[in-house]
Amino acid sequence: MKKAEILKLLRESGDYLSGQELCSRFGVSRTAVWKIINQLKDEGYEIEAVQNKGYRLQSSPDLLEEGEIASRLGTGRMGNNLICLPSTGSTNVDAKKAAEEGAAEGTLVVTDCQEAGRGRRGRAWSSPAGCNIYFTLLLRPPCRPEQACMLTLVMALAVAKAVRELGLDAGIKWPNDIVLSGKKVCGILTEMSAETDYIHYVVIGTGINVNQEEFPEEIGKTATSLKREKGEGVARATLLASIIGHFERAYEVFSASWDLRSLLPAYQELLLNKDRPVRVLDPGGEFQGTARGINESGELLVEREDGTLEAVYAGEVSVRGIYGYV
Amino acid sequence: MKKAEILKLLRESGDYLSGQELCSRFGVSRTAVWKIINQLKDEGYEIEAVQNKGYRLQSSPDLLEEGEIASRLGTGRMGNNLICLPSTGSTNVDAKKAAEEGAAEGTLVVTDCQEAGRGRRGRAWSSPAGCNIYFTLLLRPPCRPEQACMLTLVMALAVAKAVRELGLDAGIKWPNDIVLSGKKVCGILTEMSAETDYIHYVVIGTGINVNQEEFPEEIGKTATSLKREKGEGVARATLLASIIGHFERAYEVFSASWDLRSLLPAYQELLLNKDRPVRVLDPGGEFQGTARGINESGELLVEREDGTLEAVYAGEVSVRGIYGYV
Repeated sequence: MKKAEILKLLRESGDYLSGQELCSRFGVSRTAVWKIINQLKDEGYEIEAVQNKGYRLQSSPDLLEEGEIASRLGTGRMGNNLICLPSTGSTNVDAKKAAEEGAAEGTLVVTDCQEAGRGRRGRAWSSPAGCNIYFTLLLRPPCRPEQACMLTLVMALAVAKAVRELGLDAGIKWPNDIVLSGKKVCGILTEMSAETDYIHYVVIGTGINVNQEEFPEEIGKTATSLKREKGEGVARATLLASIIGHFERAYEVFSASWDLRSLLPAYQELLLNKDRPVRVLDPGGEFQGTARGINESGELLVEREDGTLEAVYAGEVSVRGIYGYV
Repeated sequence: MKKAEILKLLRESGDYLSGQELCSRFGVSRTAVWKIINQLKDEGYEIEAVQNKGYRLQSSPDLLEEGEIASRLGTGRMGNNLICLPSTGSTNVDAKKAAEEGAAEGTLVVTDCQEAGRGRRGRAWSSPAGCNIYFTLLLRPPCRPEQACMLTLVMALAVAKAVRELGLDAGIKWPNDIVLSGKKVCGILTEMSAETDYIHYVVIGTGINVNQEEFPEEIGKTATSLKREKGEGVARATLLASIIGHFERAYEVFSASWDLRSLLPAYQELLLNKDRPVRVLDPGGEFQGTARGINESGELLVEREDGTLEAVYAGEVSVRGIYGYV
């Protein structure tokens, strides 16, 4: 894809590049280069053209599009197969379909707008166009199904790290919500297809409120966006590339033991639930306690009032006291 | 479905039923009854018709078809939604598709012939027409994914029980092979679609060698059929109905605790691995031991040479020494 390559070269140079240089570099005609430059301008890139000097990139629009993303990804397998869609029903559905058809580990489906975005247990996930990030990463981990469940925490860690690098004080609400000023900015939905002891594939869908400014009333009290918290817009393709990079490194660490032992310190440090009250909806009876951290399997360790420690699963616990006063 | 009802009535009566009786019972004309009787004859049912006495069912062909199965099922939800196909690619694929479209728990897909039958990890499962049973049961258990993994053992137990009621000495090779005279007669492939803590659905595919007489050379040493072991044919619809009945009862017991505690004695009694040598392919190193039984999670308990007991997962263990000298 010549467009992405020319864009990358312009961005990396930061200075003028002559049309002649671009022609010989990519083996295309001056007319072809001129056409690509015009295409980029149409998409919102500001490119200065100066006689005898050449082209210089002045600014990029906030696009979530193949050239923008591919030119920023510094990963190996993750995102190597990149599927960018202007809009789609749900990136998890697309990724599952691709997986059934044999798509490789690391396949990344990204879209600017989801018409049928879904959260956990079939709940809707608001996915307006032009401001946020919606992506799904396809994995084929050679581990057991219950080990793959921890991947949702690995992604939470990757997103939290990338958001913190923007200068924002992001924390994790166990198991996988990213929280800023007591409000949620990211949701993760991990799904898998497996035999009893063999995983066909795992898809990790992630939705991040990036530059969204207005929220519907019903979620405005519990949801926010990076732009609202930071006071300025965030470049989506750059953030996405950063998340995928963090995830690739964390996944490599995770896959050495297929548990969270090596990621535990980093996760615990960002865990907002620590030393906070929690209500556990145990099948054997509800109880109150204090969250103390997680274990290597990703379970939340809850201290009962009598001092005993219990490990609880996601889905069994109602973690109150985080939203609103972090 | 009038045909199934008339067939059921004829079978249960065991004696002559007058055309008049059948007409008034089902609110149809004598011509309609006569047409259905002729349809049944065409399908291979031997039905005697005697003036002034009526119709009497003398024998049924070995059909794996809707009327035959539905008229024998005495279950509640299991098999209530019955999808019978003369032939198909794979009943697991059909059941997964039905599940994605919202099919209810208990949906049963049955076929006489699979063109693309699959065993574990994508291996082929030989599925010739006219002699065996291939079915998939759809479940939507409100438990955790790792608990649903045990359902494959629940189905193994149901199949073993139904086969034993035919007078055959069936045993279970952990986790889910049904074995007769040291050879395999049944394979089970359980697959699920799940979020990290929430199951969308589970499909349990089962293939049973019932009346197959000839086996390809490559599997003839390790595979057999009920007919070969019993010396006579087995009615497939009756056997299937019996399996589904056993499964429904076992599933009810299982779902009381979502573990195998109450099914343990029955399973252990049929477990062929007990007190036999086993080789465990542990990621931390291979070791030899002696199988002692299973625990409530369906794991195999292996005694090491130093006397310590270890619980191992399916997929980590190579259970040798069963085929060939049971």
